[in-house]
Amino acid sequence: MSKYQHIREEAYQANMQLPKLDLVLFTFGNASAADRSLGVFAIKPSGVAYENLSPDKMVIVDFEGKTVEGNLRPSSDTLTHAVLFKHWDKIGGIVHTHSTYATAWAQAQRDIPVFGTTHADYTTADIPCAPPMSDEMIKGNYESETGHQIINCFSSRQMNYEEVEMILVGNHAPFTWGKTAAKAVHNSAVLEYVARMAILTEQINSGAPRLKDALIKKHFERKHGPDSYYGQS
Amino acid sequence: MSKYQHIREEAYQANMQLPKLDLVLFTFGNASAADRSLGVFAIKPSGVAYENLSPDKMVIVDFEGKTVEGNLRPSSDTLTHAVLFKHWDKIGGIVHTHSTYATAWAQAQRDIPVFGTTHADYTTADIPCAPPMSDEMIKGNYESETGHQIINCFSSRQMNYEEVEMILVGNHAPFTWGKTAAKAVHNSAVLEYVARMAILTEQINSGAPRLKDALIKKHFERKHGPDSYYGQS
Amino acid sequence: MSKYQHIREEAYQANMQLPKLDLVLFTFGNASAADRSLGVFAIKPSGVAYENLSPDKMVIVDFEGKTVEGNLRPSSDTLTHAVLFKHWDKIGGIVHTHSTYATAWAQAQRDIPVFGTTHADYTTADIPCAPPMSDEMIKGNYESETGHQIINCFSSRQMNYEEVEMILVGNHAPFTWGKTAAKAVHNSAVLEYVARMAILTEQINSGAPRLKDALIKKHFERKHGPDSYYGQS
Amino acid sequence: MSKYQHIREEAYQANMQLPKLDLVLFTFGNASAADRSLGVFAIKPSGVAYENLSPDKMVIVDFEGKTVEGNLRPSSDTLTHAVLFKHWDKIGGIVHTHSTYATAWAQAQRDIPVFGTTHADYTTADIPCAPPMSDEMIKGNYESETGHQIINCFSSRQMNYEEVEMILVGNHAPFTWGKTAAKAVHNSAVLEYVARMAILTEQINSGAPRLKDALIKKHFERKHGPDSYYGQS
Repeated sequence: MSKYQHIREEAYQANMQLPKLDLVLFTFGNASAADRSLGVFAIKPSGVAYENLSPDKMVIVDFEGKTVEGNLRPSSDTLTHAVLFKHWDKIGGIVHTHSTYATAWAQAQRDIPVFGTTHADYTTADIPCAPPMSDEMIKGNYESETGHQIINCFSSRQMNYEEVEMILVGNHAPFTWGKTAAKAVHNSAVLEYVARMAILTEQINSGAPRLKDALIKKHFERKHGPDSYYGQS
Repeated sequence: MSKYQHIREEAYQANMQLPKLDLVLFTFGNASAADRSLGVFAIKPSGVAYENLSPDKMVIVDFEGKTVEGNLRPSSDTLTHAVLFKHWDKIGGIVHTHSTYATAWAQAQRDIPVFGTTHADYTTADIPCAPPMSDEMIKGNYESETGHQIINCFSSRQMNYEEVEMILVGNHAPFTWGKTAAKAVHNSAVLEYVARMAILTEQINSGAPRLKDALIKKHFERKHGPDSYYGQS
Repeated sequence: MSKYQHIREEAYQANMQLPKLDLVLFTFGNASAADRSLGVFAIKPSGVAYENLSPDKMVIVDFEGKTVEGNLRPSSDTLTHAVLFKHWDKIGGIVHTHSTYATAWAQAQRDIPVFGTTHADYTTADIPCAPPMSDEMIKGNYESETGHQIINCFSSRQMNYEEVEMILVGNHAPFTWGKTAAKAVHNSAVLEYVARMAILTEQINSGAPRLKDALIKKHFERKHGPDSYYGQS
Repeated sequence: MSKYQHIREEAYQANMQLPKLDLVLFTFGNASAADRSLGVFAIKPSGVAYENLSPDKMVIVDFEGKTVEGNLRPSSDTLTHAVLFKHWDKIGGIVHTHSTYATAWAQAQRDIPVFGTTHADYTTADIPCAPPMSDEMIKGNYESETGHQIINCFSSRQMNYEEVEMILVGNHAPFTWGKTAAKAVHNSAVLEYVARMAILTEQINSGAPRLKDALIKKHFERKHGPDSYYGQS
């Protein structure tokens, strides 16, 4: 048995959640799971239908993007995953989808404003939309540069990837991450839900204000602060 | 067997309806069922997935919010339920969700206007949106204060909680109630349906008028007046 | 066995299609099937959940609205059905729902413009929205007057109920009909589909023009004219 | 066994995908599969419900629209398929639906702008909306002229049907095609998905810009250029 069986299994389970949660059409998405002690991650093979996936079809790739184990070609977005795993050393899973509402915000090139507590339960910030990449980046190593565009967006805004686990890449689509692949999938579903409510909020009240600071702080701390009291500890 | 078995079962059944009716993503919601003779209610444990629930996992809490029976931590919204049960002595069940359309109206901080008979079959009033809470309330006992915010909204508008069994908490999400937990769930689904039709109505006709008084009265009385003639009596 | 068994069965099957086609929430709708030789129709009992229906629970009512057979109270909308069956002698089935998009147009008090061939395949006219009823009509025999409001709308616009088998009642919701209950159900689903595309059309192009006359005529005649060539004849 | 069994099977499978992918209500769509060596295509019979289809019910038609084998009347849109198969000799399958969002763009008479990479993965161009047909064309051989309208639109815009495999016919609905019937179905689903995200994009940002040229080129070449690297080669 492969010594990567555990992340093959984890990546497989995460990928299979994407169609179940209505986050992908056909093969428009991919999830990965990393083992940092081994310096590799497992990722969906490119263009293979979800119903044909199995743990043994996951491709094992190192943080430079080199295939370590597997006969299939990894996701065309593999280098974006590799760059994020390499630079952000606390994340264990990444998900990329073209989910409808989050992608529409990315296409509109707008941050998603924090309009309510559902959003604040996950992050205190507007969900950032990185600007579309420069022509030089696009013509270069595109997928690798997509990863750098994400990292640069967080750096320039002084945002912390452990506090905000999601981003929109302008004109493209969302990426989410987390300590595990399962958490990254969870974040993708939440992002889609929040993105949908945000457009409805603006349609109901074009001048809808951002959530007040006290509520942003309160809700985030309910779930994440040192005194959090959500869930079973 | 627990002497609270009947409300454990009632709360369990009500909670299980929430994902079935598409009112919740993941664990974004909770239902409770009270036994007033015993002075307690059963409520969903915090952060436990619906597919992992069972009647014995419900937590029994008194109207001050103190856990009476159960090993799990109750919903983080428990104190809101407790305050409402304590102050409104005719209700037997409460539901809280972040359902998409109702939450969008809450985020937009607008009452839902009564645009048609579907709405009037349930209440003669616009569905109220309580203002976002003050910073003092937020920094205090937040969930308890959420309950007071709801009660204050009804008092200041001179509304009757037996005639209007639903509210939006500004920037947050809806709460509904009823004589039973099942009725509170029913009201949550109706609220979501009405909220969706209301935004569509304004999109089709930005100057759509409120329902005329004669129709509001007629439809409410068809279902609720002393001469009601809907359903099997 | 009841001599009304055939219309009990027909009405039952039609009612069961309504939740299957996503046209109703809970009990927000009803279908009826008439036997003109017997001068009666079968209709859903009031407020009974679809999953609890069976042919023997349908209520048999005459065209004056008097119950002829059955122990349950018939739909609260029964008199509307009765008036339509009585005045329009070519229809064999009627459906009433509060389906989301059609009801939103009714609440907006607007006719649904014929924007495309999907609509023209069914009717050459805009789908009419009858004005909300007068206070006198509402305070009178409300459900009976709803039927008269529908008939008056068709008369005043010189529309033919055999060519246009659907209407919106302003501030209320849609009614559809047809030679059979199954056709009335079919029309309800088409109306909801057309209503949804019409709002989207206006959102994409606020100045979208009505379909040109030549296309309206062509598509209607493909399906309905003496030289129709749609389907298996 | 019919010598057309292979395309009967292919057309059947393609048609059955349409309701599964939520692209059709009732019988509002049809798919065809051609065998160019035999000079014929198999197409759905007119007005037959999908659940009643089987391979042997497909109708075999030549590229002039003449039925070659089969007892049922072919789809009323058969001549449109025939014209496209006759003039565009690299396509093996065609799909026509009235899918909600694509049809709404057709009714709005607007091209769908390329707003993001999801779109650019399929085509570098805005998805064209052919103008509504002239009264002469409508009164002539309507379905045949619909095919010519599509071909004329591509000619006048100097577009290549192998690079852009989809079109909207103004006031009517979408047509898609591909090397196989399965690819034509795939394109119908992608078109609907892209059409939905495009309207949302404009609602979020009414001034949303088209995708920049470098990204359009990059994404299309990832999937389609000589150096494409998507999927398993």
